[in-house]
Amino acid sequence: MSSEDLAKQIGEIGEFIKQAKAEGKPKEVWESSLQQMVALKAQYKEATGEDFGGTKQESKKKSSGDANQEASEKNKEKAAAKAAAKAEKERKKEANRLAREQREREKAEKLAGVGQENFGDAPMVQSQSISDKQWTKVGQLSPALVGQEVWVRGHIQTCRSMGKGVFVLLRSSLYTVQGVCFESKDGQISSAMVKYIAALPLESVVDLQGIVSVPEVPVEKATQTNVELQIQGLFCISKASTTMPFQMEDACRPDSTKESDVGAYDADAEKAKQDAAGLDGPHVGQEIRLDYRWIDLRTPANQSIFRIESMVGQLFREYLCNNGFVELHTPKLIGGASEGGSEVFRVDYFGQPACLAMSPQLHKQMTAACSGFERVYEVGPVFRAENSNTRRHLCEFTGLDLEMAIHEHYDEVLQVFSELFIYIFDGLNQRCQAELTRVREQHPFEDLQYCRPTLKITYAEGCKLLRDAGIPQDDLQDLSTEHEKKLGDIVKAKYGTDFFFMDKYPLSVRPFYTMPDPNNPKLSNSYDFFIRGQEILSGAQRIHEPALLEERAKSHGIPLDTIASYVNSFRNGALPHGGGGIGLERVVMLFLGLPNIRKAAWFPRDPKRLMP
Amino acid sequence: MSSEDLAKQIGEIGEFIKQAKAEGKPKEVWESSLQQMVALKAQYKEATGEDFGGTKQESKKKSSGDANQEASEKNKEKAAAKAAAKAEKERKKEANRLAREQREREKAEKLAGVGQENFGDAPMVQSQSISDKQWTKVGQLSPALVGQEVWVRGHIQTCRSMGKGVFVLLRSSLYTVQGVCFESKDGQISSAMVKYIAALPLESVVDLQGIVSVPEVPVEKATQTNVELQIQGLFCISKASTTMPFQMEDACRPDSTKESDVGAYDADAEKAKQDAAGLDGPHVGQEIRLDYRWIDLRTPANQSIFRIESMVGQLFREYLCNNGFVELHTPKLIGGASEGGSEVFRVDYFGQPACLAMSPQLHKQMTAACSGFERVYEVGPVFRAENSNTRRHLCEFTGLDLEMAIHEHYDEVLQVFSELFIYIFDGLNQRCQAELTRVREQHPFEDLQYCRPTLKITYAEGCKLLRDAGIPQDDLQDLSTEHEKKLGDIVKAKYGTDFFFMDKYPLSVRPFYTMPDPNNPKLSNSYDFFIRGQEILSGAQRIHEPALLEERAKSHGIPLDTIASYVNSFRNGALPHGGGGIGLERVVMLFLGLPNIRKAAWFPRDPKRLMP
Repeated sequence: MSSEDLAKQIGEIGEFIKQAKAEGKPKEVWESSLQQMVALKAQYKEATGEDFGGTKQESKKKSSGDANQEASEKNKEKAAAKAAAKAEKERKKEANRLAREQREREKAEKLAGVGQENFGDAPMVQSQSISDKQWTKVGQLSPALVGQEVWVRGHIQTCRSMGKGVFVLLRSSLYTVQGVCFESKDGQISSAMVKYIAALPLESVVDLQGIVSVPEVPVEKATQTNVELQIQGLFCISKASTTMPFQMEDACRPDSTKESDVGAYDADAEKAKQDAAGLDGPHVGQEIRLDYRWIDLRTPANQSIFRIESMVGQLFREYLCNNGFVELHTPKLIGGASEGGSEVFRVDYFGQPACLAMSPQLHKQMTAACSGFERVYEVGPVFRAENSNTRRHLCEFTGLDLEMAIHEHYDEVLQVFSELFIYIFDGLNQRCQAELTRVREQHPFEDLQYCRPTLKITYAEGCKLLRDAGIPQDDLQDLSTEHEKKLGDIVKAKYGTDFFFMDKYPLSVRPFYTMPDPNNPKLSNSYDFFIRGQEILSGAQRIHEPALLEERAKSHGIPLDTIASYVNSFRNGALPHGGGGIGLERVVMLFLGLPNIRKAAWFPRDPKRLMP
Repeated sequence: MSSEDLAKQIGEIGEFIKQAKAEGKPKEVWESSLQQMVALKAQYKEATGEDFGGTKQESKKKSSGDANQEASEKNKEKAAAKAAAKAEKERKKEANRLAREQREREKAEKLAGVGQENFGDAPMVQSQSISDKQWTKVGQLSPALVGQEVWVRGHIQTCRSMGKGVFVLLRSSLYTVQGVCFESKDGQISSAMVKYIAALPLESVVDLQGIVSVPEVPVEKATQTNVELQIQGLFCISKASTTMPFQMEDACRPDSTKESDVGAYDADAEKAKQDAAGLDGPHVGQEIRLDYRWIDLRTPANQSIFRIESMVGQLFREYLCNNGFVELHTPKLIGGASEGGSEVFRVDYFGQPACLAMSPQLHKQMTAACSGFERVYEVGPVFRAENSNTRRHLCEFTGLDLEMAIHEHYDEVLQVFSELFIYIFDGLNQRCQAELTRVREQHPFEDLQYCRPTLKITYAEGCKLLRDAGIPQDDLQDLSTEHEKKLGDIVKAKYGTDFFFMDKYPLSVRPFYTMPDPNNPKLSNSYDFFIRGQEILSGAQRIHEPALLEERAKSHGIPLDTIASYVNSFRNGALPHGGGGIGLERVVMLFLGLPNIRKAAWFPRDPKRLMP
């Protein structure tokens, strides 16, 4: 190939690479072209004795040399020498310019990671191959690993340049570690590498190759305070957009103390407040957090809240599986349009009216009491089309339900619940220490106090405690949310517990299927549980005799034809039974003293929110 | 009180009790009246020297005596003596009649349990008090307890009279035991007691007090073959209706062998068949079973199937919790009306259009890949408005979903799945032996064969296996259900496994978010899993780069505005990831070789069934 052809091809390939980069195409699109270009440049140098880039200059020089040879008079030598000197100067100038351009191009390529071995944009992870890299979790980094080389993958939470170096805070799940990268004289860490790291958009995912070291001063900003990573290599795996709806630093800031005192929750007002404050303000409002939930969930507090929530479910099931309960999956699609009156979501089921289950009540009873499974539980979604915009209501939440046969008394159920809750609370305190620390850093709260076994008072005793404190409360009237909170305070002061049971509720305030008290026709064999003065469970012994079920339904004004199939399931021999349903998000919210149930729901649904 | 007043009062109370019983009122309604009556009768005897019931006779005798005294001639003595003898005879006759009536009344009362200490209808269990009874589970009854007195509660499955005795088969969960009750000379077991037991409607719930004994011949009908219970007491806790939609004996009968070969499922045809066969026929059709699911679930096979299903969930979560996965609860209510085209159920959400999630795909990816949870799983309902009436489809089923970040290759996901499934299969075989035995008795099946690690073949290899067997199959065409089954047979014959993975599916047959194969643009980084030739899991590495997601969506003809919020969640740095979703009911159905997925769903939902 002639040098001209080579030059032409190098130019074309260069143009292609330039354009590919301008369009932001992944490295693998232009990488082989780059290698081809390097090979062609080598050929070019072999053919012409000159680096490509000096090419035109070289041929210019040659042609000007030819022209000089055509002039053949002595008195022209001086002018020729002068012209040659000028040409030489021009050539040098042009060569310098091209060299500068080349350096800049190389610098840009280095910044983009081209041709570099220890930094740059990695090819898209597409299961090309499996390397022998040993990956370490950020949470596992400790001084025990000092001197070892590790690979960690995480998000760049913050990045701070300092002289010829850069400090990055790398985050993975609920842990962070500081990475340090300073330009080195041996060329291992180039200034291009430091600049590349500094220029990466925050929240980009990177693979960091580093040597574990122990910093002179603990790194207070990181969860791994006693180690840092001396960066040897850094590759971007997924580049974040440079515009973020809010900064992670702001999203991690501790709660303002007054937020939890507000009783009502007004999404619009919050939204307006947050808009007025500006998106980059120091506090990130609840609404924008939820709008970009996938970013909000990255905060160490949120990483912890949902690991704690996961643990509540795990402990709930562990205890029940160890105590003979069977996991049930009840249908959420229920025939008919009126399971619970106006508060159901209606569904079109192949042209038939249907609705979403407001609780697994009916099927729990059918399996535990009528089918002989004796002890069943379910963890599943519960739907309430209730137009409530409060800090404690959701339109879809996770129910932890159980139902069990009893031999003689609903105290058998309460004993299971008492042991169950103590198992859950103990388990959280034992197994989730790191998570509880992270939550506390952002949302300070007092440890939950609870007794063994759980304190139980009767409804009448609860009402009397209120009256003794000067709060009017009738034994047969329902408790308001406000009175429940006050009772929680009184019980805490008197018994030193944030968690208690209250039983023997008035019959009139409970569902028709609640078993009446055998000694007092105005009371019932029912109970509620409270954490920090807020109800988290409602339950009862249920009626297992069809005749009594019908009698109670009548006195509640429920037409018998609407509950005929429910009642019929008790006509073929049924076990006496009781149970209850817990709201998972409420348990987590109240255990952690969070101000809003939305903070304990992965993707909350309320009358104004159906996204993301 | 005069004897007349006493008599009147006794009569009134007797009338009240009679009527209360006729109306089927519970024992506690008339029990205290009975005691009052007994007390009044004692008073009556004290006052008159006669048992009540002889009362009128007594006064009659007295008045005829008075009349005789008014006659005072010798020659009338003979006639008087004759008359007296006749009156005495009449009195005796009447006394006999009354005594007979009394005996019959007492017998009836005994049959109803009145006044008996060791049998009868127990007062409704209403948490009146807690006794010191020690309860034993039927499954725990063994010869080790011989000679001990136990209390067990269960359903009377069958009852057989023999001479002066009765044999009952008592069932509790998946266990049965034989109870024996013969009239005894010491009066401890009365004939009334034997008759009371024999007359109880089948499926009634009873408390049985018995002494554990070892029968001379094993009781083949019971699961507890080596023991029986010598009944000392028996009380009815919940009386079943005497009409049952089908007999439990029929419902427990082993499958006809041909049923599993039928491919399509026609509810109407089954219904017609079952109607034609008559409700009390020896086979109970699928539809009537489902109509009365709470009775059908009582069969030992069903008790076992759902305990096995519960264990699958438990094993799934155990493995994942031990391997760093976090439990996720994704919303089932999704904004918009067109998540997956026509196959979604539409919901009215406070006037906004919404639909039920067809999978937790989006939120799984958001949390695992975009929020940094890295490893998440969910167990929850999945909704498909697919008008499919087959043996393998449900409109609502339980999804076991997981999603995880990968470092380099989706083989990291497959390794987790391989270990997970082996953990589940091993766990079922180890922990559910009793349940597997009970299922086998009714639904015979071959043990599942599986290798360690799980066999993996590529789609192209699978297609070649089919072609080698003379079945035409193109490498880039989707597999039909029929070809999947054939491939399962070929793989079983060649590799000796009922369970395998197949990866590298054609890109065109997978969802747009599937990562393309890096080496062949027509293939993808996706996989399906099969048990006994039927698909149970579909999954893939997913695209984590927004630009590629949009490109793939375009080539699938999906308008970008409909997936904008999905794509946006990948713009802030996302981890490479993969995952998959398992249908719980399918795993259970195929592990147990059941002929119909409805047998593995607690309360199945299909286009024709929304009840119970």
